[in-house]
Amino acid sequence: MERQIHGGDIYRNKVLLDFSVNSNPLGVPKPVRLAAALAAADIEHYPDIRCEELKKAISRFEGIPEEKIICGNGAAELFFAAALAGRPKKALVLSPSFSEYERALKAVGAEIQYAALPKEKGFEADESLLEKITPEYDMIFLCNPNNPTGCVMKKCLLKAVLEKCRKYGILLVLDECFVDFLEEPEKVTMREEAAGSAEFLLVKAFTKLFAMPGLRLGYAVSGDQELLEKMKEVLQPWNVSVPAQAGGIAALTDCGNYCVDEYIKNTRKYVKAERERMESALKELGYYVFPSKANYLFFRGKPFLYEAAVEAGFLIRDCSSYRGLSPGYYRIAVRKKEENERFITWLREL
Amino acid sequence: MERQIHGGDIYRNKVLLDFSVNSNPLGVPKPVRLAAALAAADIEHYPDIRCEELKKAISRFEGIPEEKIICGNGAAELFFAAALAGRPKKALVLSPSFSEYERALKAVGAEIQYAALPKEKGFEADESLLEKITPEYDMIFLCNPNNPTGCVMKKCLLKAVLEKCRKYGILLVLDECFVDFLEEPEKVTMREEAAGSAEFLLVKAFTKLFAMPGLRLGYAVSGDQELLEKMKEVLQPWNVSVPAQAGGIAALTDCGNYCVDEYIKNTRKYVKAERERMESALKELGYYVFPSKANYLFFRGKPFLYEAAVEAGFLIRDCSSYRGLSPGYYRIAVRKKEENERFITWLREL
Repeated sequence: MERQIHGGDIYRNKVLLDFSVNSNPLGVPKPVRLAAALAAADIEHYPDIRCEELKKAISRFEGIPEEKIICGNGAAELFFAAALAGRPKKALVLSPSFSEYERALKAVGAEIQYAALPKEKGFEADESLLEKITPEYDMIFLCNPNNPTGCVMKKCLLKAVLEKCRKYGILLVLDECFVDFLEEPEKVTMREEAAGSAEFLLVKAFTKLFAMPGLRLGYAVSGDQELLEKMKEVLQPWNVSVPAQAGGIAALTDCGNYCVDEYIKNTRKYVKAERERMESALKELGYYVFPSKANYLFFRGKPFLYEAAVEAGFLIRDCSSYRGLSPGYYRIAVRKKEENERFITWLREL
Repeated sequence: MERQIHGGDIYRNKVLLDFSVNSNPLGVPKPVRLAAALAAADIEHYPDIRCEELKKAISRFEGIPEEKIICGNGAAELFFAAALAGRPKKALVLSPSFSEYERALKAVGAEIQYAALPKEKGFEADESLLEKITPEYDMIFLCNPNNPTGCVMKKCLLKAVLEKCRKYGILLVLDECFVDFLEEPEKVTMREEAAGSAEFLLVKAFTKLFAMPGLRLGYAVSGDQELLEKMKEVLQPWNVSVPAQAGGIAALTDCGNYCVDEYIKNTRKYVKAERERMESALKELGYYVFPSKANYLFFRGKPFLYEAAVEAGFLIRDCSSYRGLSPGYYRIAVRKKEENERFITWLREL
């Protein structure tokens, strides 16, 4: 049995239920699956290098002009492109957080400093973060809600961070891949600010919200045309495949019974109810559960839990590989009710 | 009407027949299309980050051990990854050649020198190339057969280039995306040498040979484990999508009526016959045609030819944007017999 660097490795584990991947429990919208299948009819063509139709759909969905949007082969590619475009000498990332920021920065040879999130406050970012933002940095990566903790940074703090970054000329990359799972994303999202600011890139993905990690599709929003141009220069022209573009357009387009707003509204309701139920169950069983607002739960358990879960057919995210964490931290996705039940039942019998 | 930076832009041109994309005229093998469609059933899973099954298939096809293979989101991504891994200060590319080498090098801030291929010799690389390989370079990109010219570099010259690169510690990247269209690729391919050498990366793609540019799938072969590890470090883990991996496996696996070797054998036969027929027709019409051995023809014509062709519904590759070329150079793909007929008929009536 192998330890994970990332979740979702169903290829080398016999898995009944994968709790390591935190995507939408409502599953792939039917029109997305259909569009992906039908895209097979067009694979002899190169993808549209400008992603015109896809950008139009994202523009409508986000309420952001098309020219402020860039698409990528998953959000991960855009982190690498941002690092290549920004060419930072020194960068700041929080810990624990998503490991790809660090990898993207290392790829361009940047020196990385880690700002440890306060363990005693449940790894929630607070005002002390502002002191850590100093002119020595060229680039900062933030994730809201944070992965793997599920903590949400308040908008006033984010705005203060942005202000400080602008003052010092630091490129701010904010990962909002999980923001749409929140009950009230509008209270937190920095979308408008990103569309209106220089040196600020907001990254989102179809991966989690539309449960389509296999297609690879992400996008970023920025008011910084120079930054977007630089990112295009460091990306191959055909980075977003034909099936990914088709799937993305379908995800954002009402069609038959499928209504995007409805799907997202239902997602939020479902995720909240199931997260709260799982949180209670975990707490009842004596696990320490951190206060997540996202579609996953971060908790502490005995160090053998990962192995025991895999043995029982549940793949969970062992978070010991995250910088700033030690063995005994785990992340589980909020899945379908009956699947969550099965996991909780197993935990009870453990 | 817009001028092209790349071929295949059917999204902003009303195109009847696209001669600007030089992929296999026999079209997507049926099992590839089927696999791509069926992959829609698996898009809620992350792709296999190790591409295990795909690498096994490539390994069988190329006769190269799996651990010497790396997969990418098209060959283009691998050029960028090679540049990022090699971090060259100064690099050499030939002109004219495929523009993505230059873009990849620029993305990492390398200084680029251009070795002009001898126009008077039909842009065919000769021994004089060896003199241009000096210790000041960290990296060299070559393409064989060359794009857009279709010229083939002899294996003895390639071996001499490799020897010189090894002597000076220069990373050699050889693009063999079109090599399988040659009548006798075994006489030219540097596959074995790449698998046995340090600082030598051979790049190939499924794009052209299996006519599947929309899926995005390429791979590279090298005996340099350190180089391959470095490339992995600068790539996101999930760079090859679920449909691309499925399509690639299908392309290389005999299934029902589909036999890979047969498909490639038929491709070679078809391409040779059609290329020769088109070449004769173009020459008869007074065009200067360069001696291509690949699945495309490079020729000289009047500067208005691109616009006139588009007007008539034929998208051809205007090569004036290639470094080292001026208006009046064109590339056309060898397509299906009846399609080639239509184009030639139009040219005759022009």
